[in-house]
Amino acid sequence: MEINNISFFPWEERPKGCNDVMWRYSKNPIIGRYDIPNSNSIFNSAVVPFKAGYAGVFRSDNKAVQMNLYVGFSKNGTDWEINPEPIKMKPGNTNMLDSEYKYDPRVTFIEDRYWLTWCNGYHGPTIGIAYTFDFVDFYQCENAFLPFNRNGVLFPEKINNKYAMLSRPSDNGHTPFGDVFISFSPDMKYWGEHRCVMKVAPFEKSAWQCTKIGAGTVPFRTEQGWLMFYHGVINTCRGYRYSMGAAILDLENPEKVLYRTQPYLLAPNEIYELTGDVPNVVFPCAAIVKNNKVTVYYGAADTVVALAFGYLNEIIEFVMNNSL
Amino acid sequence: MEINNISFFPWEERPKGCNDVMWRYSKNPIIGRYDIPNSNSIFNSAVVPFKAGYAGVFRSDNKAVQMNLYVGFSKNGTDWEINPEPIKMKPGNTNMLDSEYKYDPRVTFIEDRYWLTWCNGYHGPTIGIAYTFDFVDFYQCENAFLPFNRNGVLFPEKINNKYAMLSRPSDNGHTPFGDVFISFSPDMKYWGEHRCVMKVAPFEKSAWQCTKIGAGTVPFRTEQGWLMFYHGVINTCRGYRYSMGAAILDLENPEKVLYRTQPYLLAPNEIYELTGDVPNVVFPCAAIVKNNKVTVYYGAADTVVALAFGYLNEIIEFVMNNSL
Amino acid sequence: MEINNISFFPWEERPKGCNDVMWRYSKNPIIGRYDIPNSNSIFNSAVVPFKAGYAGVFRSDNKAVQMNLYVGFSKNGTDWEINPEPIKMKPGNTNMLDSEYKYDPRVTFIEDRYWLTWCNGYHGPTIGIAYTFDFVDFYQCENAFLPFNRNGVLFPEKINNKYAMLSRPSDNGHTPFGDVFISFSPDMKYWGEHRCVMKVAPFEKSAWQCTKIGAGTVPFRTEQGWLMFYHGVINTCRGYRYSMGAAILDLENPEKVLYRTQPYLLAPNEIYELTGDVPNVVFPCAAIVKNNKVTVYYGAADTVVALAFGYLNEIIEFVMNNSL
Amino acid sequence: MEINNISFFPWEERPKGCNDVMWRYSKNPIIGRYDIPNSNSIFNSAVVPFKAGYAGVFRSDNKAVQMNLYVGFSKNGTDWEINPEPIKMKPGNTNMLDSEYKYDPRVTFIEDRYWLTWCNGYHGPTIGIAYTFDFVDFYQCENAFLPFNRNGVLFPEKINNKYAMLSRPSDNGHTPFGDVFISFSPDMKYWGEHRCVMKVAPFEKSAWQCTKIGAGTVPFRTEQGWLMFYHGVINTCRGYRYSMGAAILDLENPEKVLYRTQPYLLAPNEIYELTGDVPNVVFPCAAIVKNNKVTVYYGAADTVVALAFGYLNEIIEFVMNNSL
Amino acid sequence: MEINNISFFPWEERPKGCNDVMWRYSKNPIIGRYDIPNSNSIFNSAVVPFKAGYAGVFRSDNKAVQMNLYVGFSKNGTDWEINPEPIKMKPGNTNMLDSEYKYDPRVTFIEDRYWLTWCNGYHGPTIGIAYTFDFVDFYQCENAFLPFNRNGVLFPEKINNKYAMLSRPSDNGHTPFGDVFISFSPDMKYWGEHRCVMKVAPFEKSAWQCTKIGAGTVPFRTEQGWLMFYHGVINTCRGYRYSMGAAILDLENPEKVLYRTQPYLLAPNEIYELTGDVPNVVFPCAAIVKNNKVTVYYGAADTVVALAFGYLNEIIEFVMNNSL
Amino acid sequence: MEINNISFFPWEERPKGCNDVMWRYSKNPIIGRYDIPNSNSIFNSAVVPFKAGYAGVFRSDNKAVQMNLYVGFSKNGTDWEINPEPIKMKPGNTNMLDSEYKYDPRVTFIEDRYWLTWCNGYHGPTIGIAYTFDFVDFYQCENAFLPFNRNGVLFPEKINNKYAMLSRPSDNGHTPFGDVFISFSPDMKYWGEHRCVMKVAPFEKSAWQCTKIGAGTVPFRTEQGWLMFYHGVINTCRGYRYSMGAAILDLENPEKVLYRTQPYLLAPNEIYELTGDVPNVVFPCAAIVKNNKVTVYYGAADTVVALAFGYLNEIIEFVMNNSL
Repeated sequence: MEINNISFFPWEERPKGCNDVMWRYSKNPIIGRYDIPNSNSIFNSAVVPFKAGYAGVFRSDNKAVQMNLYVGFSKNGTDWEINPEPIKMKPGNTNMLDSEYKYDPRVTFIEDRYWLTWCNGYHGPTIGIAYTFDFVDFYQCENAFLPFNRNGVLFPEKINNKYAMLSRPSDNGHTPFGDVFISFSPDMKYWGEHRCVMKVAPFEKSAWQCTKIGAGTVPFRTEQGWLMFYHGVINTCRGYRYSMGAAILDLENPEKVLYRTQPYLLAPNEIYELTGDVPNVVFPCAAIVKNNKVTVYYGAADTVVALAFGYLNEIIEFVMNNSL
Repeated sequence: MEINNISFFPWEERPKGCNDVMWRYSKNPIIGRYDIPNSNSIFNSAVVPFKAGYAGVFRSDNKAVQMNLYVGFSKNGTDWEINPEPIKMKPGNTNMLDSEYKYDPRVTFIEDRYWLTWCNGYHGPTIGIAYTFDFVDFYQCENAFLPFNRNGVLFPEKINNKYAMLSRPSDNGHTPFGDVFISFSPDMKYWGEHRCVMKVAPFEKSAWQCTKIGAGTVPFRTEQGWLMFYHGVINTCRGYRYSMGAAILDLENPEKVLYRTQPYLLAPNEIYELTGDVPNVVFPCAAIVKNNKVTVYYGAADTVVALAFGYLNEIIEFVMNNSL
Repeated sequence: MEINNISFFPWEERPKGCNDVMWRYSKNPIIGRYDIPNSNSIFNSAVVPFKAGYAGVFRSDNKAVQMNLYVGFSKNGTDWEINPEPIKMKPGNTNMLDSEYKYDPRVTFIEDRYWLTWCNGYHGPTIGIAYTFDFVDFYQCENAFLPFNRNGVLFPEKINNKYAMLSRPSDNGHTPFGDVFISFSPDMKYWGEHRCVMKVAPFEKSAWQCTKIGAGTVPFRTEQGWLMFYHGVINTCRGYRYSMGAAILDLENPEKVLYRTQPYLLAPNEIYELTGDVPNVVFPCAAIVKNNKVTVYYGAADTVVALAFGYLNEIIEFVMNNSL
Repeated sequence: MEINNISFFPWEERPKGCNDVMWRYSKNPIIGRYDIPNSNSIFNSAVVPFKAGYAGVFRSDNKAVQMNLYVGFSKNGTDWEINPEPIKMKPGNTNMLDSEYKYDPRVTFIEDRYWLTWCNGYHGPTIGIAYTFDFVDFYQCENAFLPFNRNGVLFPEKINNKYAMLSRPSDNGHTPFGDVFISFSPDMKYWGEHRCVMKVAPFEKSAWQCTKIGAGTVPFRTEQGWLMFYHGVINTCRGYRYSMGAAILDLENPEKVLYRTQPYLLAPNEIYELTGDVPNVVFPCAAIVKNNKVTVYYGAADTVVALAFGYLNEIIEFVMNNSL
Repeated sequence: MEINNISFFPWEERPKGCNDVMWRYSKNPIIGRYDIPNSNSIFNSAVVPFKAGYAGVFRSDNKAVQMNLYVGFSKNGTDWEINPEPIKMKPGNTNMLDSEYKYDPRVTFIEDRYWLTWCNGYHGPTIGIAYTFDFVDFYQCENAFLPFNRNGVLFPEKINNKYAMLSRPSDNGHTPFGDVFISFSPDMKYWGEHRCVMKVAPFEKSAWQCTKIGAGTVPFRTEQGWLMFYHGVINTCRGYRYSMGAAILDLENPEKVLYRTQPYLLAPNEIYELTGDVPNVVFPCAAIVKNNKVTVYYGAADTVVALAFGYLNEIIEFVMNNSL
Repeated sequence: MEINNISFFPWEERPKGCNDVMWRYSKNPIIGRYDIPNSNSIFNSAVVPFKAGYAGVFRSDNKAVQMNLYVGFSKNGTDWEINPEPIKMKPGNTNMLDSEYKYDPRVTFIEDRYWLTWCNGYHGPTIGIAYTFDFVDFYQCENAFLPFNRNGVLFPEKINNKYAMLSRPSDNGHTPFGDVFISFSPDMKYWGEHRCVMKVAPFEKSAWQCTKIGAGTVPFRTEQGWLMFYHGVINTCRGYRYSMGAAILDLENPEKVLYRTQPYLLAPNEIYELTGDVPNVVFPCAAIVKNNKVTVYYGAADTVVALAFGYLNEIIEFVMNNSL
């Protein structure tokens, strides 16, 4: 999401000797697993510019390992005040606020308000939707889909006058498959026109994304198309490994993938990515952009929140030149 | 579906000595597996009264075991002329007619036309929708849901001014789980307000429906509520066994189950149910009703079409008195 | 169990041309699946001589597919009157009568009463125990073991002054493994001294019993040892197939197998064994003996009860000459 | 295999009203499961013309369900005398005659002798090879491959001066996958030049062969290419179903598939195919040809041997016109 | 186990800034994986006060990864001398000393001797029992149960004049399920009166203990009931994660759970818990108590032994206030 | 492979206090995961003495996680120059150079050239073969076997005038089983005379190698027999753990195992073995020997290359004295 001018932008230059398109923040993780009282972990969280700083919706599992969403605010994007009480929803276009668990939020601003989507437990995982104007009051809407679904990510604009959402049909467990679809809605209540957007890659072409893929950050409008960071998963003999790539979708027909990274952009390598509740996970949930600088918020090892950086033009060039 | 007066109604009285609520047609199966040229099987098919007789949409797998839908007509409901060419869809509210396979149709009349739903292959199974006025031209609409879904069954009326559909979220394989949900649509294009309707039964209470359940016949309005025949599945050490039960749903809030059979109404016992491409399957897809008589069309052993009969008042009484 | 002199003994001579050690009753099945009102199936049942005839405890699943035990009486061992009400237990040496389900009974007379064992659902399958003097009042005792266990079969005498029971440790599902153990009890309340008795056979030596085996009939004292019919299972690409063999255990150290059939004695071949709720199942639960004649009661296809016959001396000779 | 002129040829004309390319023998099965003393089943067996009649190698599982090979002879191809003693191998080009089990034989004549291949148990299934001049003495050769492999079928001629064998790499269990490969040998001892010949079909195009396929009968030279009947498998919710198709391979480059049936030629439908030790299996192992008549020997339900017939020109035409 | 007055008690105060109920020893692990010659790992071990210091029974896997039990002694509870020879059992109330492997010991003093229980390999895992007076001679008793069972933990007193043992019925592999049961014995030879004590928690309420749970430390008598630390397991997409909670059982009816932690008390976070032979394991096996101080010995990452501390009153208060 | 005299030999003495037969290089890993541009990992690689130094063939997965082979050269065996372009094969005794992926190389010199074997993707993993004289031009030969196979390792001499190769039949996934076989070839084109060499160990005897084993380094001729380092795998509840052992095979009949380590020689313990793309992997691929010193190159955590050292006489003595 493009940052307004007055905000401080969280950023660090590419380290000497680094030739990668994207690099990590030297002070990662920016949020520790115990930074909320009684928390077990804080990760896979969404950040947007808000007022003169930033607001965020954070996934935190408490020490009972109950998954819930929390609001936080920050002036600089790296130091956060997180409300220790989970978000309590109010009725939006529905009275059904049932939720067995909430996790993996994404946030985007559309027209006049911030929209929050997340994985919502209703007889299995599906996509929950809510909106807020102020990150204080959240109004819940109808779940977008029937279970089982995860990784619902809204586009930051209506497309052809309809809301558009990426998502990944799933199963009720660890889901050993998964492709990205798009759906449309005139009103954030009823959804349809479901199309397959992108599927897992062949093992021999791009094994890091051969088991499942899922939308990650809210797509960002560029001249070349919607830029979206996504995660890809390979199933090793020790379980799943999550890495980050990027795709560029057609601006008007976003079900059309124009480019998509064959190499990953970021894969687990640091100790906070290699150890934790779920080792070897890099899971992007939000990206902010300012003056050609891109900062990605990603969950590491299902335990903490970390940052990665890159230059927008370089990323786009890389995606276009290294497309699957 | 209630039959008009002039139609012949397929029916046979309860056999002597039979105390069951429902019983089989003595001439079952009414449609053999090879009754379409090049067919491997004809089963799980839908029938509605049409003009002075009946029209049907039939699932037939050809000898390449490709699954498709075929139209048939009958004067008496038991003898059928089936068009050997599969239905070819025309654009309804969509131009996307992609379909890897089509199976398990249901048909109902709403307002001014016949609506057809089926399991439609689009990157996995989902619910296809089409309408026809004449069983000659079929107009395909947007798939109701993202994959993976099966057993989409429309209510025969709008409820609260919206179309209503039962369905069963699934996976991409043989799906070892499955509960029935309801969804609503203002326009047969966008769907939402998803609610869980009924779940599998506990093993110790009603094992025949402890693995998965799915909507079967189009719900039929009665004073006591929507009467629907459904299938339940138990996973034996030789695979799945499908039986038939019935539920009564609240007329105004059909997500509310008023009654639901703890005992099954029909379970595999005849040789055409116990042997075939998938032994031990009884799978109801359509029910027609006239003057308190109910005739259910069900697929047997994933191979042939068969009939079962019962008196409406007795069935309702049984469901109410033997509710889970 | 040895039959007293006045009883009619169910028997049919070996058919002409048959060279098998054991053969089937020409009027099989002797009990049909619907022979109890509301029953779905009657199978895997136990029979003992009682008064001038026979008493039996029958497994019947009702049409809700709830598994329970029923009492029946017969004068000739083939025609049965079965009480349509399931057995209701009274407290024996326990007040805990909890049972989620009851199935696969065996019955034996020890000292002064008839002991009934069965697979009892208590947070998973385990072995239930009860006794009766008259097949009217049944007194339930403590479950013999922790879950998960099935096929608990008592010896008809105390051995070294202790009750002895064969059983098969299992899991909570269809259990793809299983060996036979023996346990001892001074009082039918506490059990111990668990020993492994016999294990599955190597695939290349006796594939019909390579997946799991389980005690079948109550062991019968012979000069050569305890003769017991048991079931063996092979896992085919269409699921389990159950066949019947026999073993001879040492009279004083019954954990010691003296002989055990490498070939089966009976395997599914008749239509009532090849089709039904679980095709390809032959499951022996009781054997009665009189004047060198042996009659085995076995469940067929998890659906009906059938009989097989043989001469005791021939069976023993066969087991000894064809031992694994 | 082409039949010499003096032989009686097993044949029955197409039944009235039958429009299928291939049809069954009205007296099927020609060999019953108990036709060898102590046999449990006789199926998946190979037949070749021999002297003035026919010789065969039969798979029979005995009542211990040990799998072995037996020799038989017949004057007319339908009535068989089978030697009740399994084949005992003598050393051919190897002294290693180890075999945990032997099953699914195929036989072909090359140059001066009959070659037998079968699934040979050596630390898992692999392809055993032996030759005989007289069906009395069999000389075993080195196993063709490392485990795990099944369905090894030799071509009836050397191709480019090398022996050629089709086979299907497998696993050690029920193998839920399987494609057909070809390998070559200069000497029946060392094998190489492995090439993939044909793979399973996409589910939506030809579901009966979407799980695995395997070579069936010895390829028969025709003008259009090598005609081979093969089996295809679909995994239903009740396990595998085996059907029969045919392929035509290039005469000089037999790794090249010219045509291959999209529809099956024969799928389980008769009671001896639908019930038995493994229901719903049609498994072709041998074909004999004379004057445009083709007779296929196939195993039914892993229990018995049956025959199917067709006209060679019609079969070839069908394969060419209905190719996947 | 309450410590006598003269012993040194292993203890470290709560670190500054720590608000957790329990905290780790700063010098963890106290025993390294190679601290026994030829050992691969030392973990999941039991400690009791003994004479003026402590005795322990240690699980160590040697470099062949054979699991066995070893005796050790310590004056202060943190520095240990471990006998490099595994314990060799002598006959107690049984002569059957067969054991394929021994692991996960617990020790408690009852009346006049120390009782050792462990997971004993006898045709699968079950609960081994032995006693010792001096930690030199160990006398083995009959296995408590049939396989498959793990985590057998004795109460430190007879209850209603019977020995009482917690255990967890299991399967023969990694066991993806598991609830805690209690059994009673008059004589440490025969066991019965099996009752279910506590089951896994619902995923949405307490996911860290939603897959399986098992008794950990010997229950400690408090006014509020038996305090027991136990482990809970969640199955992540990278395998199991073991955490520690606590329960309070009714003093007289210990099958009754009075309180049980919804949040965990300790979950893997330190590098010696997050890496090792089995990462992400915290597995409590023993607790010692003195003057309101509690020290828990737990295995970390199936590799080393570590300590955690807490105040008894605070732990009890926490369990009561945060009960599931 | 024995080193010529002029080469520098990579070596480090046994650390003080270390009593293990083999020990690690203090500067491990010698090759980092990013040491090739765009690499994700470099591991499981083969090294041989070449000219005055060493040549190596390296497995590197690039950032698309495509697996390929790369050539490198080193003067001292620890500092490497790796060509960033993968090896491009030329036709050797085949024109079929198809390869979906290449990984896990081994290299050995036989007679006049260096032979390279690797896991080659051709419709599944099989063993690729190539030769080179100069590590510049590589000539590919026919794949040795049908899929599915891995860990093909050539002997450094012909045995009985034939090439000999160890390999491990596998499946197409993570292969939860695996034994080592040997095959022979007169010409590096056709292979046969397959024999089972060694199988997994019983869990209770040597659990680190109870799930699967695979040949590791090229066997090295010693007086006692062929010394080969191999890997063994145990399946933990967090996935596979790979350790290293050694075996001594008979010089003339290498299918005969003379000795084989019951304890492992090296198992994952260092942070570069415990964390990475696949934690807990020690995977030996090459060994060089000079003057009684042995240096093993092994892949660590499927991420980097590391070294281990030992004295030849000590290793042989250890294998002989600690044989399974």
